[in-house]
Amino acid sequence: MSEQKIPYKIYLEESEMPKAWYNVRADMKKKPAPLLNPETHEEATLEELSKVFCRELAEQELNTTDAYIEIPEEIRSFYRMFRPAPLVRAYCLEEKLQTPAKIYYKFEGNNTSGSHKLNSAIAQAYYAKKEGLKGVTTETGAGQWGTALSMACSYFDLDCKVYMVKCSYEQKPFRREVMRVYGASVTPSPSTETEVGKKILMEHPGTTGSLGCAISEAVEKATTTEGYRYVLGSVLNMVLLHQTIIGLETKAALDKYGITPDISIGCAGGGSNLGGLISPFVGAQLRGEANYKFIAVEPASCPTLTRGSYVYDYCDTGRVCPLSKMYTLGSGFIPSASHAGGLRYHGMSSVLSELYDQGIMEAVSVKQTEVFAAAEQFARVEGILPAPESSHAIKVAIDEAMKCKETGEEKTIVFGLTGTGYFDMYAYEKFHDGKMDDYAPTDEEIANALKNIPKF
Amino acid sequence: MSEQKIPYKIYLEESEMPKAWYNVRADMKKKPAPLLNPETHEEATLEELSKVFCRELAEQELNTTDAYIEIPEEIRSFYRMFRPAPLVRAYCLEEKLQTPAKIYYKFEGNNTSGSHKLNSAIAQAYYAKKEGLKGVTTETGAGQWGTALSMACSYFDLDCKVYMVKCSYEQKPFRREVMRVYGASVTPSPSTETEVGKKILMEHPGTTGSLGCAISEAVEKATTTEGYRYVLGSVLNMVLLHQTIIGLETKAALDKYGITPDISIGCAGGGSNLGGLISPFVGAQLRGEANYKFIAVEPASCPTLTRGSYVYDYCDTGRVCPLSKMYTLGSGFIPSASHAGGLRYHGMSSVLSELYDQGIMEAVSVKQTEVFAAAEQFARVEGILPAPESSHAIKVAIDEAMKCKETGEEKTIVFGLTGTGYFDMYAYEKFHDGKMDDYAPTDEEIANALKNIPKF
Repeated sequence: MSEQKIPYKIYLEESEMPKAWYNVRADMKKKPAPLLNPETHEEATLEELSKVFCRELAEQELNTTDAYIEIPEEIRSFYRMFRPAPLVRAYCLEEKLQTPAKIYYKFEGNNTSGSHKLNSAIAQAYYAKKEGLKGVTTETGAGQWGTALSMACSYFDLDCKVYMVKCSYEQKPFRREVMRVYGASVTPSPSTETEVGKKILMEHPGTTGSLGCAISEAVEKATTTEGYRYVLGSVLNMVLLHQTIIGLETKAALDKYGITPDISIGCAGGGSNLGGLISPFVGAQLRGEANYKFIAVEPASCPTLTRGSYVYDYCDTGRVCPLSKMYTLGSGFIPSASHAGGLRYHGMSSVLSELYDQGIMEAVSVKQTEVFAAAEQFARVEGILPAPESSHAIKVAIDEAMKCKETGEEKTIVFGLTGTGYFDMYAYEKFHDGKMDDYAPTDEEIANALKNIPKF
Repeated sequence: MSEQKIPYKIYLEESEMPKAWYNVRADMKKKPAPLLNPETHEEATLEELSKVFCRELAEQELNTTDAYIEIPEEIRSFYRMFRPAPLVRAYCLEEKLQTPAKIYYKFEGNNTSGSHKLNSAIAQAYYAKKEGLKGVTTETGAGQWGTALSMACSYFDLDCKVYMVKCSYEQKPFRREVMRVYGASVTPSPSTETEVGKKILMEHPGTTGSLGCAISEAVEKATTTEGYRYVLGSVLNMVLLHQTIIGLETKAALDKYGITPDISIGCAGGGSNLGGLISPFVGAQLRGEANYKFIAVEPASCPTLTRGSYVYDYCDTGRVCPLSKMYTLGSGFIPSASHAGGLRYHGMSSVLSELYDQGIMEAVSVKQTEVFAAAEQFARVEGILPAPESSHAIKVAIDEAMKCKETGEEKTIVFGLTGTGYFDMYAYEKFHDGKMDDYAPTDEEIANALKNIPKF
């Protein structure tokens, strides 16, 4: 099909939307390492996981063999409210950069939660409802996940209890307020509502919290309250599975126009968006059908893949969750207070960790001022105000496009634009006013953080 | 076509997008009254208007004969970045209400400006660029228009000077910050940058401003600065013309599925969204092709159509703009400080005023607490967090759907969902905390406001 025919936005028909999620582990010869029980260090069983998670989600978590898992009609029905998401050809950005590269982005921000998180939130809420639960608990950092889960719970009439990292709770009252519109209760973490929260407050009075703390509190609340389970917005296999709707739609849209991407780029915090975007392409590559380049982009202030260790570690500060083998900076690692936005988690999805370890995926880290400069450049030509997280991918997509300009190569670049930055204007303001720094951990700080990871 | 076949979201193909705006005045037998020169009270000429507005826009303002005006390719190219906008079938809302009514909404919030305002902003920026101007000036209240214009000016590399109503400037720092991302300069109004601003500050020290003041400042700045013109986001004929892209797309989408709307509903502040939505349907009715019901919804705190007078009045506080015959509460009218969101303008589009006067369009006013209750109900089932302005239309759409439930009628209701409420969480918070009141002007206050309108 001729170049001229490719529209600005490729929307699939509703009838072309994926009917099953894709489980990339089924095509991986060397699978990611299993989760371990944090006390016995034995492989975590379905029974054990089912005390924390809904049973069907625990099954998905452990499923390494089925390549496709059907999306229940109730979830597909909700997806139709905000999906298919457009695959946008960045004609204006290409022209601005004067690059021969062809740039596409999958835009996941066209829903009220403002990000891709809703893809998994609605799935997890559905299984909770199906199991007859009263409600779910979770943590949220920047607030995207909490907002998405609030929306999903409101749809299925489930109670939703969110532990929000305290500094974010205080700095982002409007995020909190959106969750309230959807009927969620939001507690700043650490709190005195849980034992682990009290303990953390005792040991670190005045702490403004971290994702690891908030996870511990949410898990404790879920496992000690009748009719509740815990849900998580990233890192886990089940979350990556749900997020493959991103990559499946992207691949279907590209296939429709006969386009083969050379490079796929996504930001990586816990790995949910990147894993969701690239999984179907990784699968094709593992099956020998194609050859792609995948790039994970992380903040220099939280360089999990680029400077972490690939070992078993705790997933949370309170050490109540199963152990996961992953690239990690240690469960005590907290990025500099000057770091804006999300992508703060100390670990990484075990699937992406394994793909990185096998050399199938690359990783780079970028500084936040260059990320915000890329965000602003993008906003001005493409119209969309990107979330700081998504802007990490923009930065590297622009870098790759500029390399093409030098070499004259007409590469096709696809990146994930995970969300919008409407609730991040404080960070944009700091950037504009020249008050944003680029602090990255020193070698000594990294070495100390890694030293604190126990040996299992 | 069977009911089952109607998707959640009807997206037109890019090739189906309108190539011309529709000028409803061409089909009106009794035209809206012309603008008058504020000093001579004679009909405003093209030459006079061209001192304030770009010449081609002034021509559009005065054009009452051409039914279709071609959309330049440069504007259509920008439209393709965020249009066609989806026409959404509110299946979830219908189910929640258990109504036999079929509800559709045209969602204009899927762009960074967060509203329909971008449709006219990009058109006005284009003509300004084409005329070789350096920049444009404007006012903004709630901030939607200023944001849209900043985006449009950034795209065409034009300077953009925004006078933002002071109370809004102070309460919505993030709106201001988005405009800065797009390179606009934003000044709280009234300011000491203009003579009219100084005069207003002298007469009303400590005033937190009004749209009428900000318009006067923006017009003065434009007419006293070389290479600048003034642009406006609502009220004017040219703005309604650009906004007909909303109604043309809506009609094309409905026609595609053989659907005829019974009732079309839109919120009305200056009238740009409502006029844009209904114009193509009004035209069909004026030509005797169909029969529809049109409802304008305005806030009880600023009841221009429902309690105002249909007379010539000033469009701005400083009385520098042309006089317009319209429904008005007087250019000195300022809604209660407790009123949240936009829809605060004292007057109304002369086209809509005339349609209302001829009985072609109806109008109702609604209280803000019932508006926010409808907004929350809508958000929880349809997922989208609506702007307070748009929620006026939601409230009345729900009312009409509930009437259908009583009567058993399967009416088709279409309403305009003009934008998102991400920057209005302060108002949502007030609503939640029970701190929002429903102040509406007393009969005496309205009588006094109307008494202050000069006779021309």
